[in-house]
Amino acid sequence: MYGGGYGRPPPPPSGFVAPPMASMPSQYGRQLPQGPGGFAFQQPGPPPGADPQLWRWFSSVDEDRSGTITVTELQTALINGDWTQFDLDTVKMLMSIFDTDRNGTINFTEFAGLWRYIVDWQNVFRHFDTDRSGTIEGRELAEALRSFGYTLSPPLLNLVEQKYSSRPTPGYGPPPGITFDRFVRACVVVKTLTEAFQRTDTDRDGWIYINYEQFMQIVLSAP
Amino acid sequence: MYGGGYGRPPPPPSGFVAPPMASMPSQYGRQLPQGPGGFAFQQPGPPPGADPQLWRWFSSVDEDRSGTITVTELQTALINGDWTQFDLDTVKMLMSIFDTDRNGTINFTEFAGLWRYIVDWQNVFRHFDTDRSGTIEGRELAEALRSFGYTLSPPLLNLVEQKYSSRPTPGYGPPPGITFDRFVRACVVVKTLTEAFQRTDTDRDGWIYINYEQFMQIVLSAP
Repeated sequence: MYGGGYGRPPPPPSGFVAPPMASMPSQYGRQLPQGPGGFAFQQPGPPPGADPQLWRWFSSVDEDRSGTITVTELQTALINGDWTQFDLDTVKMLMSIFDTDRNGTINFTEFAGLWRYIVDWQNVFRHFDTDRSGTIEGRELAEALRSFGYTLSPPLLNLVEQKYSSRPTPGYGPPPGITFDRFVRACVVVKTLTEAFQRTDTDRDGWIYINYEQFMQIVLSAP
Repeated sequence: MYGGGYGRPPPPPSGFVAPPMASMPSQYGRQLPQGPGGFAFQQPGPPPGADPQLWRWFSSVDEDRSGTITVTELQTALINGDWTQFDLDTVKMLMSIFDTDRNGTINFTEFAGLWRYIVDWQNVFRHFDTDRSGTIEGRELAEALRSFGYTLSPPLLNLVEQKYSSRPTPGYGPPPGITFDRFVRACVVVKTLTEAFQRTDTDRDGWIYINYEQFMQIVLSAP
């Protein structure tokens, strides 16, 4: 469904920067015993059975070769189609999803999930960026959300478009488009809020009765 | 009461790059700084009677000397104490408050309000950054919000702290601090959401009955 023949070249891909073209050593050192001594530490190798391509990607993001990816390394590696870095809130959202052991960094196992997630979203983004502008505009956003099962009213769609566009919306003309990072966040926010509403709406009548604490808890928990 | 004798030098000031250090106001009300209430109009040069110092600041932000400040120019000029640029959502929030003629740029008249707003928030930030770390941490955040009249429960304070901290919160240790830009945004978001809740809670019993459309409209309208 995604990735059909394009009429013209796609915009610069969003997601991880610097495709894996750097020459990497063809043999990976097994992990050396790490302890005191005068020997230089060798970079830890991939886990047994790991996808070598994925390992190369992981290593290129792990700039200091620490064996784990920090937030800063992740933010450096993740770019939009217009070469801007992913915004902090999107990076924090990704960490909250994939830093499953909650130690503040992404290890190789966690990276595999993150990588897959970004690639899947890249395909979604390209599919719905029907005018190949490199950003998602109003109609494309509506189509994407509808395909995920969220049929928002025009006023709500307009709010989502304004909130996640990469520039303020001037009083005239259409709002600017939404870059990759903010598109992913917008979709996750709509999903999170809608599901929280549905969980609260136990009798399924489309209305909820909540107090201030519950209301703020729902809103502040969204990315 | 703000800006009393510091035990040690304050961190780099947040706000406009190289802000005027002299003649900061020493007092103001315990309210969130407010946006302008009046109208604004385009000025080709400094209006008669304009503060020459403010005009120099405006001109330094208006890099291309176009007579108006674009979002990009604004984002370039606004820095946090750790020298990071203001995040896009905060810049968009500032534009939504001060671009009163909604033409997508900030003219000199609008800039005067924006400048005042930033200076006011700088004073708020410095006042509540009691450990002079250059960021706002949990207890400081609670104190700041309480001074504005928002006494949030510990779980909600924790959510605000996590959401607006400038790094993800690892599973152990305290969350990282909140930089100036995100502190301003956090306070405005809490204010916006609380006021929206209160407007909906017409019988003032602390509970609201809302449908999905209203719920999403409130949440997506917050910065």
